[in-house]
Amino acid sequence: MRTSQYILATLKETPSDAEVISHQLMLRAGMIRRVASGLYTWLPSGLRVLRKVENIVREEMDKAGAIEMLMPIIQPADLWEESGRWEQFGPELMRFADRHNREFALGPTHEEVITDFVRKEISSYKQLPLTLYQVQTKVRDERRPRFGVMRAREFTMKDAYSFHLTEACLDATYQAMHKAYCNIFERLGLDYRPVIADTGSIGGSVSHEFHVLAESGEDAIAFSDASDYAANIEKAEAVAPSETRPEPSKELKVFPTPDAKTISELKKHYGVKPHRGVKTLIVYGAPNEDGIRGLVALVLRGDHELNELKAEKHPLVDSPLEMASEADIVAAIGANPGSLGPVGLSMPIIVDRSANVLADFVAGANKDDEHFSGINWDRDVKSYDVADIRNIMEGDPSPCGQGTLQIKRGIEVGHIFQLGTKYSEAMKAGVLSESGKNQIMTMGCYGIGVSRIVAAAIEQNNDQYGIIWPTAIAPFDLAIVPMNMHKSHRIPDIANNLYDELKAAGLDVLFDDRKERPGVMFNDMELLGVPYTLVIGERNLDENKVELKNRRTGEKLMIDIDTAVETIKATINV
Amino acid sequence: MRTSQYILATLKETPSDAEVISHQLMLRAGMIRRVASGLYTWLPSGLRVLRKVENIVREEMDKAGAIEMLMPIIQPADLWEESGRWEQFGPELMRFADRHNREFALGPTHEEVITDFVRKEISSYKQLPLTLYQVQTKVRDERRPRFGVMRAREFTMKDAYSFHLTEACLDATYQAMHKAYCNIFERLGLDYRPVIADTGSIGGSVSHEFHVLAESGEDAIAFSDASDYAANIEKAEAVAPSETRPEPSKELKVFPTPDAKTISELKKHYGVKPHRGVKTLIVYGAPNEDGIRGLVALVLRGDHELNELKAEKHPLVDSPLEMASEADIVAAIGANPGSLGPVGLSMPIIVDRSANVLADFVAGANKDDEHFSGINWDRDVKSYDVADIRNIMEGDPSPCGQGTLQIKRGIEVGHIFQLGTKYSEAMKAGVLSESGKNQIMTMGCYGIGVSRIVAAAIEQNNDQYGIIWPTAIAPFDLAIVPMNMHKSHRIPDIANNLYDELKAAGLDVLFDDRKERPGVMFNDMELLGVPYTLVIGERNLDENKVELKNRRTGEKLMIDIDTAVETIKATINV
Repeated sequence: MRTSQYILATLKETPSDAEVISHQLMLRAGMIRRVASGLYTWLPSGLRVLRKVENIVREEMDKAGAIEMLMPIIQPADLWEESGRWEQFGPELMRFADRHNREFALGPTHEEVITDFVRKEISSYKQLPLTLYQVQTKVRDERRPRFGVMRAREFTMKDAYSFHLTEACLDATYQAMHKAYCNIFERLGLDYRPVIADTGSIGGSVSHEFHVLAESGEDAIAFSDASDYAANIEKAEAVAPSETRPEPSKELKVFPTPDAKTISELKKHYGVKPHRGVKTLIVYGAPNEDGIRGLVALVLRGDHELNELKAEKHPLVDSPLEMASEADIVAAIGANPGSLGPVGLSMPIIVDRSANVLADFVAGANKDDEHFSGINWDRDVKSYDVADIRNIMEGDPSPCGQGTLQIKRGIEVGHIFQLGTKYSEAMKAGVLSESGKNQIMTMGCYGIGVSRIVAAAIEQNNDQYGIIWPTAIAPFDLAIVPMNMHKSHRIPDIANNLYDELKAAGLDVLFDDRKERPGVMFNDMELLGVPYTLVIGERNLDENKVELKNRRTGEKLMIDIDTAVETIKATINV
Repeated sequence: MRTSQYILATLKETPSDAEVISHQLMLRAGMIRRVASGLYTWLPSGLRVLRKVENIVREEMDKAGAIEMLMPIIQPADLWEESGRWEQFGPELMRFADRHNREFALGPTHEEVITDFVRKEISSYKQLPLTLYQVQTKVRDERRPRFGVMRAREFTMKDAYSFHLTEACLDATYQAMHKAYCNIFERLGLDYRPVIADTGSIGGSVSHEFHVLAESGEDAIAFSDASDYAANIEKAEAVAPSETRPEPSKELKVFPTPDAKTISELKKHYGVKPHRGVKTLIVYGAPNEDGIRGLVALVLRGDHELNELKAEKHPLVDSPLEMASEADIVAAIGANPGSLGPVGLSMPIIVDRSANVLADFVAGANKDDEHFSGINWDRDVKSYDVADIRNIMEGDPSPCGQGTLQIKRGIEVGHIFQLGTKYSEAMKAGVLSESGKNQIMTMGCYGIGVSRIVAAAIEQNNDQYGIIWPTAIAPFDLAIVPMNMHKSHRIPDIANNLYDELKAAGLDVLFDDRKERPGVMFNDMELLGVPYTLVIGERNLDENKVELKNRRTGEKLMIDIDTAVETIKATINV
C-alpha cells in the first residue's frame, strides 16, 4: 500500500476526550473515528488489525473442531421471552419494534438464537458433541460507553456455543476451548492470563476469564508467584489462616473514641493497629417466608476489604448484596455506622475467617463514640458463622497451596463458561439419548472480544512515540521510508523495486511515498506502530546499504540492497 | 471437512413457505435457516459461499484502488436529518431510540456516515480522488420480506463511495468501478448484464444496474441483439418511429360500442386491431402555483404499455405518477374510463411517439358506450404534446441504432451511481481547491448485494437434483463419497489418504464419512451442488481407479489412484 493512495489520517494532537492510552493512540494513529457515543468507524489501518485478530481467532477455532456459521444481529423478542432474559436483561439490551410493531433486540450475545437453532436441527445424541461459532457485530447499549473500542456500543465478538449429552463431555470441550484460547493469545503475541472467574448473570458453574495484562486494566487478578494459579480477585479464595486463635488474655473494656469513625482514625487517634481491630458492616439479609428482610452483620479484620460476591453467596445474605441504610442501622442497633461491633448484636453475624482467629481485639461498642478492647470470640460473642467474605491481599498464601499471591491488573478479552442446562432447560432443547429417551442438552459458551483485543494490545504495547504492534497483528509488517525521494534519482527506483519485491514475497508493506520531510514520515510510522521500518537514504546507498529499524527495540541493522529481501524476510520472520 | 464433524442439515422435503427455487434450495441444501421474517442464520455451507463471494468482491475492489474500512451499523439520526433523508426515507429505515432516548437507525446505506467522515478527514483537493468501501451487514425493514435472502431484512452488502473535485474525475472512477463490477461477475461465473438504469430516489444522473439473468428475475431488461446495449425496461427508450404519419383518408365517425371497455374487447367485438386504436389514461397533472392538480391525458397505441417513470418525468405530470380516480374522470369528462379518447378533451394531452404516427385510428368518444373511428391528429385533435411514455416491446429497434430489442428477466445484484453533489451539498462536504477556495465534492456510490448474489447464482444454476455452483463460489471444490466404507477394508484407507492429499493440495474438500447408503450421499452432494464428486468403490479399486463426476455435465471420468491428485487438480482447475 502506498500512503499516497491510502488514508493514514494520523493526528499530531491527543484528542481531549480520550482518557486511556489505547483510545488516544487509536485516534492519533488513524485507526478509528467516533461517529456517536460508543460507535466507531474503523479506518483502513484499524480494520487491518481487526481482520488479523479475527483470522487468528478463526483458525484456532477451526483447529479445535468448532464450525463457523453466522446468526442475525436482529433477534426476535419471543426467543428472549422463552429464556426469561427479555425481563432479566437490563437496558443494555437494545430493543426496538419493526414496522408491524413486533419486538426485537440487537444481539449482545446469542444463547437464545443458537439454542433455538440446535433444538430444531439436532435430534440425536449421535450428532453430539457440537461446537458452533461466529465472528459478528454485537450491540450493547452501555450506560457509559468509554475508552474507545474498549467499551463501545457496537463491537466485534467471536462467540461459540457447545452442546453435549453429559457434563464429562462438556468438560472435555471446555478444556479444548481453554487450550484454543491459550493458542490464540500466544499467537496474538500478548502477555495474558487465564483466570478463574465468577459466572455472574450468564449462569453455570465453571468459568475462566482471559485477561491481557496491562496497568490500565479494569480488573484485578490474583496470581500465585509459584504456580499457574490465577483468579479474578472477586473469585480468589482467601485461604483459612493456618494459625489457631490464641486464648483470651484481656478483659472486655469499653473506651471512649469520639474522634474515630473509621479504622484509620482508630489507628491515628488511639493507636489501634488495623489488623488488631475488626470492622462491622450491616447488610440486608435474605428475605424470610413473608418476603421481609432483616439485617445481617459482616465482620472483617480492620485491614481487609469486603468481597461482595462472596458475601452475597452466603445463604443468610440477600443477593445482590445491599448495604443497610443508616436509618435502619440506627433503628436496630441504636448507634451510627462509625461505632458498630459484634458484641451484643441481636442479628446474625458472619465473621471472615481471618477475623475469626483474632483474640483480644478492638471493635465498636454499638454506642456512639465508644469502642471495646479485649474482645474475644465465644466468650463475648456467642453465636456467629465463619466464612470467606474478604478480598485477597497481595502476600496472602495462594489457594493452590503453592507460593503467595501477587495482584496485577488485566483487561478481560475472553470468557468461557460451563453453562450447564440453563438455556437448554428453559427452551426445551433435548435430543434422543442412546436409550431412546428425550434428554436436555448440556451447554458451554465461549466468547472473545475481538475489537477489544485491538485496544488491549495497545494498552500493553506502547511507548511515548506511539503503538508497538506485536508482529502477528500489525497493520503492516514493514514500512518503506525513502528520505527526500523527490530530490533524488536513484532513491525512487530502489524504493519502488524493493516495494514490489517485498510485496511479491508476501509481506504487508506500507510504502510512504508522500512528499513529506523524513521526520514527519518516521513519526507517523512510529505512531502507527509498524514493527520494522526500511530507511532508504543517499548516504547508505553509496555503500549499497539500506537501514532496517526495529520499532520495539530501536535496533538498526544495515543490510545489503542486493540481498535485502531475504535478509528482511529472515529478520521479520512473518 | 468431514460430514461427521459438520452440519450438513439437508432436507428431503421442499419447505412449503419457500416460493422461489433459490429459497427452496438454500433451505434444502442446509445453507440458511429462518430466525424470523426476513432474518436468517447462515449455516456453515451457506457461509462458505457467502465468504467466497465477499472475497472476490474485495479483491477486485482493492485492485481498482478502493480502500476498505468499516462503518457502524448503528447510525445517529442527526446525520440523516442533515441530508434530509430522516424525513424522506420511508418505514424501510429501521429506527429506534437508545437508553437516553437519542434516535438512531440501522443503516440500509451509508452515504451520510461516509460524507460526514470525508468532510472531517479530507481537506485538500490533493487528497482526491478517493474511493472507500466496506463489506457489511445492512438492515432494511422490508414491507414484505420474501424469497429468502433475496429480499431479507438483514443482509450483506458491499458499498463503496467515491469523492472528486470534478465530474470528469467522477466519470473516470465510475468507469473503473463499472469495469471492476464486470470483473467480479465474470469471476463469480455468472451470466450477467450491466444495464442502463434509473437513478430513482438515490439521486444523481448516470447509473447502471448489474443483473444476473434468470427467468425468475423481478426486473425486465431490454437488450439489443446486435450490440452491448442493455437497459432496465423502465429506462430503455422507445425510439421514435421511422415512418411518417400518413395523410387522413377517412372521416371522423362515431360508432356504438356497448360491449367494449378495453382494447381487447374492442378487437373481439368490433374487429379493431389493437395497433390501429389508442388508449387514453387520465392522471393527475403537476400542481399549479396554488398547489391544485388538474388532469392530464396520456395517449398510447392500443398494444403498448405505459411506462410510469417516463410519464412522471414529463413536466405536465405530477410525480410520483398517480392515476385519476374514476369520480374525477367522470366529473371532468362525463364518461367512464372505458370510453375515453383524445377528441374534444379539455385538458393537456401527451401522446406517445408511436401513437402520434397513426392516421385514421380508433379511440373512445368520451361518451359511455361510444367510440370514434377515422380519428386524425391535428385535424381532429388540435393541441397535444408528443413524448416517449411507453415501455419498449420485444422487436422494437434498439436505441443504440444497432439491431432490435429482446427482453430477458434479471435479478439486480449491483447498482452504480454518479451521485453528483446531492449529499456533499446538503452536508457541506467541501475541500480546498487548487485556487484555495472551498469547493463541494462530487460523489459516486457503488453497491453490490453480496448475500443476494448467493441466491441469484442459484436461480441461474440449478436442476431437478439441486444447486449447480459455479466453481469459484462453491462451498466445496470436491466431495469424496466412499461407497459402503464401513464394509470395506481398503476403501477407508484410500478415502482418508486422498482426503489428506487433496486438502494439502489446497482444495476445499468435503469428505462424506457418514454411515449412509451411497444413494443418500450422492443425493446430498448433488443437492448441495458440489462441482465434482470423487466416488470410491470396490469394483473400480480392483482396477486401481476412482471415478470423478462433474455435477454440471454429469460426465464421469475414470482416473488412476496413483495420479489422482494431479488429475483432479488439472480437471477442477481451481
